Parts: sequence; C-alpha cells; structure tokens
Amino acid sequence: MKRSHRRVVLAARPRGLPVESDFRIEPGEHPPTGAGQLLLENELISLDAGFRRWMDAGSGDDVLPAMRIGEPVMSLVLGRVVESRHAAYEPGDLLMARLAWEERSLTDASDFLVPVPGDGKHPLRFYLGALGDSGLSAYFGLVDHGKIQPGETVLVSAAAGSVGSIAGQVARLLGGRSVGIASGADKCARLVRELGYEAAVDRSRPDFAAALSSACPDGIDVYFDNVGGPLLELVLDRINVGARIVMCGAVASYTAEQPLPGPQNLFQIVTKEAHVHGIMTHKHADRYDEGRTVLGSWIESGALRVPEYVLRGIESVPRAFCDLFRGANFGKTIVEL
Amino acid sequence: MKRSHRRVVLAARPRGLPVESDFRIEPGEHPPTGAGQLLLENELISLDAGFRRWMDAGSGDDVLPAMRIGEPVMSLVLGRVVESRHAAYEPGDLLMARLAWEERSLTDASDFLVPVPGDGKHPLRFYLGALGDSGLSAYFGLVDHGKIQPGETVLVSAAAGSVGSIAGQVARLLGGRSVGIASGADKCARLVRELGYEAAVDRSRPDFAAALSSACPDGIDVYFDNVGGPLLELVLDRINVGARIVMCGAVASYTAEQPLPGPQNLFQIVTKEAHVHGIMTHKHADRYDEGRTVLGSWIESGALRVPEYVLRGIESVPRAFCDLFRGANFGKTIVEL
Repeated sequence: MKRSHRRVVLAARPRGLPVESDFRIEPGEHPPTGAGQLLLENELISLDAGFRRWMDAGSGDDVLPAMRIGEPVMSLVLGRVVESRHAAYEPGDLLMARLAWEERSLTDASDFLVPVPGDGKHPLRFYLGALGDSGLSAYFGLVDHGKIQPGETVLVSAAAGSVGSIAGQVARLLGGRSVGIASGADKCARLVRELGYEAAVDRSRPDFAAALSSACPDGIDVYFDNVGGPLLELVLDRINVGARIVMCGAVASYTAEQPLPGPQNLFQIVTKEAHVHGIMTHKHADRYDEGRTVLGSWIESGALRVPEYVLRGIESVPRAFCDLFRGANFGKTIVEL
Repeated sequence: MKRSHRRVVLAARPRGLPVESDFRIEPGEHPPTGAGQLLLENELISLDAGFRRWMDAGSGDDVLPAMRIGEPVMSLVLGRVVESRHAAYEPGDLLMARLAWEERSLTDASDFLVPVPGDGKHPLRFYLGALGDSGLSAYFGLVDHGKIQPGETVLVSAAAGSVGSIAGQVARLLGGRSVGIASGADKCARLVRELGYEAAVDRSRPDFAAALSSACPDGIDVYFDNVGGPLLELVLDRINVGARIVMCGAVASYTAEQPLPGPQNLFQIVTKEAHVHGIMTHKHADRYDEGRTVLGSWIESGALRVPEYVLRGIESVPRAFCDLFRGANFGKTIVEL
C-alpha cells in the first residue's frame, strides 16, 4: 500500500485575500494504518471559501481549531478507502470527509465522514458540490427556513458560487422568484441564462444599490446570505414584513484584515418582524440522504443544473482556492486528483 | 360634552436623551365629533421608550410617520368612549389606543384600537402594562420564538423595564433560568428579590462582561433583547448552539445621535445555528385575548408580579417619559390622568 503522497501545507497565514505563495506543495508519508484507522486515496478536493477563516492566527472556534503553519490545509475531500482497520469501513468505500489538501489521508474516523454512494448515478464530483455540503446548504437553508410562498422574491448573494449557484435554482424550484448578486456582467448574464435566475445584479456596478431595488420591485422576502458584511445593511433596508434571512456564509468577512462593522439597521429585523437563521450544514449529516434524494431527482429531471469549475492535480489546489476569492469560478470549484 | 383639554406637544426634537423642555403642555380643543368618529376621555397614558425614535426628523417608517413639532406626541393610551358616531363603539367602551399625550382624543378609528374589558378583574393600568403591549411583547416573544427548554438560560436586557420586568418572569414560568441586565445594584437586587430572576448583572459595572459570563455559566440559550446596540455583540459571543434571540426593542439606538455600529460578530449566528426573530406586538392584536388570559391567570395566582412606576396628571407626562431614559422606573411607567 503506497503511503507516500503529496500534500499542500499552509506556508504563511494569508493577509486578506489568499495568494498561491501562502501554500506549499510538499511530499508526505503516512505511518502504517493503526488499529481503528483507515487510509483513503483521495480522488477529489472541494475548495470552500469558508475554510479561509481558520487560516488566521487565533481563529479557532467550536467548529475547528486554527490551522497550523507547515501543516496540511483542512478541507473537504472525497476519497476511497484503500486500507481499513476500522470496523465500520472497508476498502472500496467512498467517503466525503473533512480532512486535508493531500493525495492520501489517514484518519481514525473521528473526522467528519459521510458515506457517498458509488453507484454511478451521478458523477462523484457532485457529492462535493450539488449533492455535497454546498448543495445541501442551499437545500436545508431554503427548505427548513425559507418558507417560500409562490412568487416571493428570493435574493441570493455570491449567486455564482458553489452554494449560490444551487440556492437560486432551489428557490425557483420551490416557487420563488430568484434574484442573484454576483460580480461582473458576464456572470450575471450566465445566472439568468444558465441557472434560471429571474434577474441578476452586478455587485461591481457603481449604481448597485439602485439596481438592487430595481431587481426587487416588490421587496425582498427571503435573503440567502453567503457573503455577510456591508451588503446585509443594504438588504435589510429592502426586506418585506415577515422576511426570512438564511445566513450561510460570510465571504466578505473571511478576508477582512479588520473585523467588518455590522449593519447599523438591525432594527429592521424588529420593525419587519423578520426571522434570521444560521445554518451549519455538517450538523445535519443525518439528513444528507433526504437532501441528496430531492436534489438528485431535480438533477436527473434536468431541472437543476450543476455548474462546476474543475482543475486537475494536487499542484492546482492553491490556485483553485485563490480563484474562489478572485471570483474566477462559476459554480462549484473542485480539483480532481 | 367637554371638548377642551390639555395636551403635550413636541416642542423640540430631542437630541439624544429627551429632556422635559422638549415637550410643552398646552390647551387643546377638539372639533365636534364627526360621522364615523369617537371621542375618548383618556384615563391612563403609557410611556414607552420606543416612541422616542419617531421624534427624530426623517424618522418616519412603515409603522408611523415622524412626529411633528407643535403636534401632540404619539403614544399608547387607555380611554373611555364618551361620544360615538362610529357603529362599532358606544359610550362607556374602554379602549387601548395608539393616540397621543392628551386628556381627550378624537379618532376616526383608523388608529390602532383594542377593546379592554372593564370588568374590574384587574386594575385598568394593567391593560397598558402586564396585560398590554408590554406584557404581550414578553409573552408573544417568548412563547412564539423562545422555545424554552427546562433549565435553559434566558437573558433579558433592560430587565427592570416595562417589557423586561414581565419577560424575566414569563421565562421563569415557562421553565427557564432568567438572568436580567439592568443598571444599578439596587435594581439588580430587586430583579432577584421581587421578580424571581435567578441572577442579575449590573450594566454599569466596569467588569460587566466578566460578570455576564459568571451569571451565565452554561452560556445563553435565549436572549430577549430590549436594548440593541453594543450589548448584542457581547451576548453573541456567549450564545449556545441553537440559541434563540428575540429582538423586541433597541433603547440604545433610540437616543443615539449617530447610528450605532452593528455587532462585528454576526457570524456567530451561523456557527451557532442561532435564530433571530423580530417582534412587533401590535401586529398580533387578534391574539391579545390569548395572551391576556394566560398572563391574567398568572397574575391572579400570584405567580406574576406587576411592578409599576405611576405618576399623576397630564403635567407629569414629560417627566415620566424622560425618567424612562434616566432609568428612574422599575416596571411599567404610567401616568394616571
């Protein structure tokens, strides 16, 4: 069993936006698989902006510790068990796991592991994207908390991202009128043309606030927030009575060198009797099958499209991650090993 | 029918904290009661900090327009119909109404009017406090959104105020462990001794943040927020997974001359999968009977105490209002006319 591999370690803590030189590719070698452990051959690596926040010194929290310089970068991966000394797993099993940017992983199964069906019904990549945490964030967020009524306006930020590209479509399939926010006219055009958004607003326009109002002439009933930061203040000024806000991510904050000020108009939550719900998808692993079944049926029927930005080889991982923050991706960013 | 009366008008827009000279008492005279109108003899005036925010220029919103200089100050009152040319009301009817600081009110019933039982079961004052919008805010907020499990920690800000003094008790009656925040050691002692709070934290202590942590050793499960502002940031850092935050008021913001910055740690809502709900009690007038029945039964059994700060005469109204912001009150502030 080959134990040597290549891995990507944190070479330096990013300052603001991450750059390729914050990471280093180096050889690694796992010790023999011990009792209770399993060795995975990783096939796919998921790039998720949310992991950026654990790259800062002192960033550890209830979810994860702060990453350490010189250690492999934590990430979601999809791997195949090649050696198991753990009763619950056997060689050939496919797992989505919170492990690291590395070609092979050794784990004692205390990491977050979710079995993935290897029946070929969907490309394995989908189990990191539309049928993985990204798609399930959109699904759980909107199904559990969106309470979308027919024709309601559902605004999605970072709408061309891994979660947003699914959220806008899920909102439409649940009866909503999806409006996306993304940076750049090209992306906005693709949101409407390829993903069925009713409208898309270019965040980089100087008249963004006015354009947002025009795109939501009846106000905002549901806001699926992937970016946090100052945008939330603009949105709060446009919510309807009884609005639901699903807080999923905060890309704007992950790269801020100083904490971003919070919205000054939180009182809108009171006057509009709004509801705000935070979601952490990995806490609902017991419902992944439910979400995958629904999302999978939409994919099979052609109702849900799965945009992807795929790069190849472990050496592409740093660029793939940095591309997330440059907005180079449209849809889910994945590296195939 | 006497139509002349005294009223309190807005003499100047308060800058920050209101002072008595922002208001002026002057004689008024209502025109004859027209078709569809009714004339009320006001018996009680409710003083509510929330009305402060409509005293600023340009403060009008979906709820109310900005108050106008020289016009009577908008308020909740309790009055008795003395003349009616409206089919739904007759002389003798008791109404809680959003009208103004005045001895008599003329309304076409387009104002917010809620019938009040005149059966003598409770003092009429209670229908502006514990059985009025103050108590019902506590009740709807905690019953609809608190989802209190036995022993959970329920933190209440402005705990000695009209809403907070009821909220801490309602939380206890629903099985929670109530912790109050108020300014001053005396008030804090009264919260524990008279209102059954398990603990109370003095906001004016220099070591407030540490004291808050000590008073909530198991974290915060429910936060009933009456003040908004910077305190929310401290609370968000101490919430448990699945916490519920009921946003009811924002006294801190009402008197701020510049908008207060929002909390920098809203992402805690995501990582803790917290839920935030705004409430506007007057939007639930169809459920006032339900709330009054439950709260009334607690009052009758002695389980719920009703602290009040009562002044007398229309000339006392400006002081009673300013006292709210000086923290002179303990419980509901009411002026008896």
